Amino acid sequence: MAAPPGSAADLGALRVGVDVGGTKVEAVALDASGAVVAHARQRTIAGPRGVAASIVDAVRALGVRPASVGVGVPGRVDGARVRDAVNLGLTDVELGTVLAAELGVLVELANDVNAAALGAHAARASGVPATGGPGTGRAGTGAGASGAREPAESLAYLNIGTGVAAGIVIGGRVLRGADSVAGEIGHLSIDPAGPECACGQRGCVEAFAGGASVARRWGGGAEHPVREVFDRADAGDARAAELVAGVAFGIAAGARTLALAVDPDRLVIGGGVTRIGERLRAAVLAALRDSAAGSPFLASLRLDERIEFLAPGESVGAIGAARLLA
Amino acid sequence: MAAPPGSAADLGALRVGVDVGGTKVEAVALDASGAVVAHARQRTIAGPRGVAASIVDAVRALGVRPASVGVGVPGRVDGARVRDAVNLGLTDVELGTVLAAELGVLVELANDVNAAALGAHAARASGVPATGGPGTGRAGTGAGASGAREPAESLAYLNIGTGVAAGIVIGGRVLRGADSVAGEIGHLSIDPAGPECACGQRGCVEAFAGGASVARRWGGGAEHPVREVFDRADAGDARAAELVAGVAFGIAAGARTLALAVDPDRLVIGGGVTRIGERLRAAVLAALRDSAAGSPFLASLRLDERIEFLAPGESVGAIGAARLLA
Repeated sequence: MAAPPGSAADLGALRVGVDVGGTKVEAVALDASGAVVAHARQRTIAGPRGVAASIVDAVRALGVRPASVGVGVPGRVDGARVRDAVNLGLTDVELGTVLAAELGVLVELANDVNAAALGAHAARASGVPATGGPGTGRAGTGAGASGAREPAESLAYLNIGTGVAAGIVIGGRVLRGADSVAGEIGHLSIDPAGPECACGQRGCVEAFAGGASVARRWGGGAEHPVREVFDRADAGDARAAELVAGVAFGIAAGARTLALAVDPDRLVIGGGVTRIGERLRAAVLAALRDSAAGSPFLASLRLDERIEFLAPGESVGAIGAARLLA
Repeated sequence: MAAPPGSAADLGALRVGVDVGGTKVEAVALDASGAVVAHARQRTIAGPRGVAASIVDAVRALGVRPASVGVGVPGRVDGARVRDAVNLGLTDVELGTVLAAELGVLVELANDVNAAALGAHAARASGVPATGGPGTGRAGTGAGASGAREPAESLAYLNIGTGVAAGIVIGGRVLRGADSVAGEIGHLSIDPAGPECACGQRGCVEAFAGGASVARRWGGGAEHPVREVFDRADAGDARAAELVAGVAFGIAAGARTLALAVDPDRLVIGGGVTRIGERLRAAVLAALRDSAAGSPFLASLRLDERIEFLAPGESVGAIGAARLLA
């Protein structure tokens, strides 16, 4: 996937996408067909200057001439501005303006989970027939535009990482929302008696299922605390089993929220916590089936059949970022 | 607002919208500017034939020549088909096909709450600047289409009636969803220890705030049970006060869900239960402020400032139905 050295001119101007993580910055270049033709990775340096430099270095390491650069970054993204990306040390930075000046191309920013949703959508858009045809809400005959039809396949991506958030793609576009918080269902309370959340509420989806919350509630200093919790639960530890049940409860509730609010064609789950793998998947499916067993309405949603987990190693963040610019 | 008798030919072909309620069918005709130029009302007759006849009669009573007819109807609407509209006796009916044959025009169906959302959107679309301009996520210069911009003002309408459901309008179009359940947040559980819901779950938004659930939990046979509950709460009845607090908790959670999932430009609340008026509004605002007081994140959403209640008598269902066809 790496570009041969010195091939920049041969490749022409390409769409570049960058995913900014807490430890690494990943960049890809897409050709006109959307295929990844170059890939680069840099260590993330924190702080406004460090993050910008890490991104610029990753883009240059691609060895291509970018036509545009899309960047997925944690925090609240509003235009060229990034706020509240605490782990990266970005309190309030005009990151887009800095990058556009440095790189000399059009730069578009998005929240990293929104960019990943677009990447997951791109990877799946061709695999499913677009909506339309039967069931598009039209009876009778005649022409005329419809005010009530989906323009294209929709997708919701639920990211279970350090925190929990979703990205929603409707009609091929990320739904950002009026205040840049669309998809922030991690901070929806699903149990007023649930665990305290860093946001100040109780029983948020993130308080149950987010990696940082699970680690905090578990305690200790394991390198992979969520994995340790799953291992201890398997070994019969009751408190670990309770935390595991909470993770499954939180993810199932997040999936239900997206299904009931947005009802996407595709409902994809990914993020660092899901690297636990099959044990996590089984726990989430069991939680969904338990709740559906008591409710014909929930059962009719067939969520256990509809949810998909990102494949291990499926990289959607940088690819989605490249697609922020059409 | 009624069309003068015999004026059908003068008015030309108009968009007609019909809202099918449990007791009455309301029809309106819109001129090209979207103004209501005729209005009619019929008693609802239950059952597949009765409902179709009530709609046809209401449309004919308008005294206009319809160019198209949009119909908002309870239940799950999928193309020309209506399912699960229990109160109307519509288990599974090709209502759209029947109406198109009877009326000889293009007929479009939608769930009644979705149609009302479109009506609320139409009434507000001109009052707010469309999204775009600052904060559209573009840094740098140059042309090129964006894959991440909202096409137009978005709105979520939360209907608190016998049941609870929402309608979502994005880019001027109703979001129907893959399985016709988009907006069905009434059946999101927000408290695993909460009251039983008719859907089989516990602690659904609808179990807390839906009129039928409140009436069932209160008991007795009052004609307006929700109003009685509010009156008894004002008089110091502890159980009534608990139910009122639950109604406010449910509506606040529904509003939060829509804000976090969709983050609409406009968040409008209406439906039969909201006819309680100022006491309900005050209780919902207090619930929103209470939760925001403990959470800077929730406070930043300013939900107490963003929610709007439909004005008493504001009729959005039939007007929205007329706009189902552009």
